[in-house]
Amino acid sequence: MSNKRIVSGMRPTGKLHLGHFHGVLANWRELQEEYECFFFAADWHSLTTEYDNTAGIRQNTDEMILDWLAFGVDPAKCVIFRQSRVPQHAELNLILSMITPVSWLERNPTYKEMQENLSTKDLSTFGFLGYPVLMASDIIVYKASKVPVGHDQLPHLEITREIARRFNYLYNREVFPEPAALLTETPKVLGLDGRKMSKSYGNAIFLSESAEETRKKVMSMVTDTQRVRRSDPGEPDRCVAFSLNSLYLPEEKKADIYAGCRSAAIGCVECKKLQAEYLVQTLAPYRARRDELTEKPGLVAEILAEGEARAATEAARTMAEVRDALNL
Amino acid sequence: MSNKRIVSGMRPTGKLHLGHFHGVLANWRELQEEYECFFFAADWHSLTTEYDNTAGIRQNTDEMILDWLAFGVDPAKCVIFRQSRVPQHAELNLILSMITPVSWLERNPTYKEMQENLSTKDLSTFGFLGYPVLMASDIIVYKASKVPVGHDQLPHLEITREIARRFNYLYNREVFPEPAALLTETPKVLGLDGRKMSKSYGNAIFLSESAEETRKKVMSMVTDTQRVRRSDPGEPDRCVAFSLNSLYLPEEKKADIYAGCRSAAIGCVECKKLQAEYLVQTLAPYRARRDELTEKPGLVAEILAEGEARAATEAARTMAEVRDALNL
Ligand code: SF4
Ligand code: SF4
Repeated sequence: MSNKRIVSGMRPTGKLHLGHFHGVLANWRELQEEYECFFFAADWHSLTTEYDNTAGIRQNTDEMILDWLAFGVDPAKCVIFRQSRVPQHAELNLILSMITPVSWLERNPTYKEMQENLSTKDLSTFGFLGYPVLMASDIIVYKASKVPVGHDQLPHLEITREIARRFNYLYNREVFPEPAALLTETPKVLGLDGRKMSKSYGNAIFLSESAEETRKKVMSMVTDTQRVRRSDPGEPDRCVAFSLNSLYLPEEKKADIYAGCRSAAIGCVECKKLQAEYLVQTLAPYRARRDELTEKPGLVAEILAEGEARAATEAARTMAEVRDALNL
Repeated sequence: MSNKRIVSGMRPTGKLHLGHFHGVLANWRELQEEYECFFFAADWHSLTTEYDNTAGIRQNTDEMILDWLAFGVDPAKCVIFRQSRVPQHAELNLILSMITPVSWLERNPTYKEMQENLSTKDLSTFGFLGYPVLMASDIIVYKASKVPVGHDQLPHLEITREIARRFNYLYNREVFPEPAALLTETPKVLGLDGRKMSKSYGNAIFLSESAEETRKKVMSMVTDTQRVRRSDPGEPDRCVAFSLNSLYLPEEKKADIYAGCRSAAIGCVECKKLQAEYLVQTLAPYRARRDELTEKPGLVAEILAEGEARAATEAARTMAEVRDALNL
């Protein structure tokens, strides 16, 4: 087992936007250079909240995987797979369920919180309650040493660590290392309307859209609302368009915009056109890669088949140890 | 799919005794003549109550399977396998957990009852709560049309039927037939001390013991306690030894014993010797078969490998439909 192994999954919600890129994928791209990475589409996890709305799971998964590959998650460097194609996750989930007290799951702080926040959904299922057990299985079936998480996911990871400890204690051997949190800092990515970028807010820019759509979206973005007339000086730090697009602007262009906006030397239309071009240029190679992959569905299938075989081999090795520990 | 398919499992508690034979195996032997039967060792189920005491699972399973085969469960007529070797049970368990309300499990009448009766055990795990979901998976993954059950298991089977219905309703197709109960009547088998025969009472007669041990046990059995002296007439219907052994006596011998006991023509020692011989004779061919199988571990392994391959093929076929229904 590698002591530099990372496991991370993403629920298939469909096409990815710039929020995903900066929130997760940019991090994955760095991690794959340093760690042995297992990245998976958490399609079974979708069922915890979407069991009654599964029509799009497969297509959402396919689109998401295309975006991963296009954004630079590299199958030569990491293992890319769909959770539902590695049944060892389910087998370990069953076994870990036998040693996990219900109380650990009920006191999970996000359990009641999600039930309240998503009150239009039925979150009273056994599978939703057991979500942290499945997450633990996903991680420790590969004996991950680290898991990239945000602060909000720390309680879940703590349950994973407790389950791993309990297994090792009950069966008196160190089958599972306790995975450590790899806390990741990510920039805040604003959507078209100034709120956090999110598909459900309808304010997102997608990799899978055309350059033309992206340009239109940027042009529709809110600017400094205190700059009423063209001749008024503006302030880029109050401008939603600039907040997003500065992630793609070279330093000298940012300086030009600060100067031009504050002196009213540049108008918002012209400025956003400029901003849009840098965004579009940055995305261009990823979009080209995505188009290429879309035209070669066989290539994606091959990447997944290889990733799933590698994942299953690793997971099967762990499960042999688990069965042995339990005398099964 | 066959519409005459039966699924039934038994937890591996070790060597089987006459109570198991009359309670389950005699029934299985009849069912295998009429139905397509899937009989499995429920080793994962053992973990719901014995997760902290797994040292014996594998050996208990092996001994149990030997007893099944020796008692006449016939691999040429039915599919014999270990649950833990057919991972599709775990996969379906995970998926069904997503659609099963926690409330169905909490209101399961045996849930609280078992927690009270087995108060020395920790039965507060997620897996114990989810026991009926795993049971549903075991049954419907083979699309069983019928399940042999005792009255006490009807509530569990009802949850299975509800889960099957809910799946078909949610995904709008008839993937799972609702299995019907096949209520079975079984004779009450008394142990050496007159209580129900049970390994844990230490009052059981095992197939795997020798004829000599069986004879000794029968000689130690309680007789009619109101027959104090040899010259007192006795009553076979008050005699524990006779209650058990009459299951093995030909009608005319039973009549002889009724007459001889009631007239004090026969003494208890002599009578029990006679009873023991009929029991030993009845068991002799099964014991010979068991010895033969014990000497050929390769044969048992082969039977299981074949059964597990057949079970997995059937289960995989169902899981393909399940994945399709969910768009996974
Ligand atoms: S000039 Fe540019 S930075 Fe300034 S408010 Fe307009 S769009 Fe924003
Ligand atoms: S004579 Fe036989 S049947 Fe009668 S009490 Fe004794 S052992 Fe029982």
